[in-house]
Amino acid sequence: MSAVPVPRFAPRGTHWLVDCYGVDALLLRDAPTIEALLRDAARAAGAHVLSSHVHRFGDGAGVTGVVVLAESHLTIHTWPEHGFAAIDLFLCGETEPERAIAHLESAWPDARIVKTRHARGA
Amino acid sequence: MSAVPVPRFAPRGTHWLVDCYGVDALLLRDAPTIEALLRDAARAAGAHVLSSHVHRFGDGAGVTGVVVLAESHLTIHTWPEHGFAAIDLFLCGETEPERAIAHLESAWPDARIVKTRHARGA
Repeated sequence: MSAVPVPRFAPRGTHWLVDCYGVDALLLRDAPTIEALLRDAARAAGAHVLSSHVHRFGDGAGVTGVVVLAESHLTIHTWPEHGFAAIDLFLCGETEPERAIAHLESAWPDARIVKTRHARGA
Repeated sequence: MSAVPVPRFAPRGTHWLVDCYGVDALLLRDAPTIEALLRDAARAAGAHVLSSHVHRFGDGAGVTGVVVLAESHLTIHTWPEHGFAAIDLFLCGETEPERAIAHLESAWPDARIVKTRHARGA
């Protein structure tokens, strides 16, 4: 972890709220796949992963996942029974959040993805 | 995935983006205090804390904190050098997010807090 940069940038981040509809229920319960998807999305944006964890709620329910980055975070909450996932991408510094979103969109090509961009600390 | 219908349900979560300006720098580096603040805010909203972690970037830099809830998450990123913190409160189910925000506002009475509310899964 020593190679991870200490953030020294201005407090300006780009926060994408990404709501995904029509996602396969089995996938939305698959914690290892969800964790890999988020970590890969973070890397696609040029971010540095500090840690990640996906909590399974069990009994056919969804998951909650968090990827902590040197450049802020990614999170996901899934509702398999509705084919729905709410993803957040909060990225600061020299990252390209749109590449993370493109990664998600390519992983879930049949989902209807509704995304909004919000400036943080502007 | 194409066979999965697009669901038509009411918002599954309330997501507040909370940007805090003019916060004391020492406080924004104080990981235990930040962690307690977030956990207490979650409880004030009636949420159930599953886990929490605050990462210190060291060398006078800020922290990144995550509280994973049964009802989604709270996160924080701090920039002590700018007196700035970006907080997220994503709360689902039978919770009262406004009580969590009131808890934050009472803890940081001198901060300028800019907050926006977003429905997730609408």
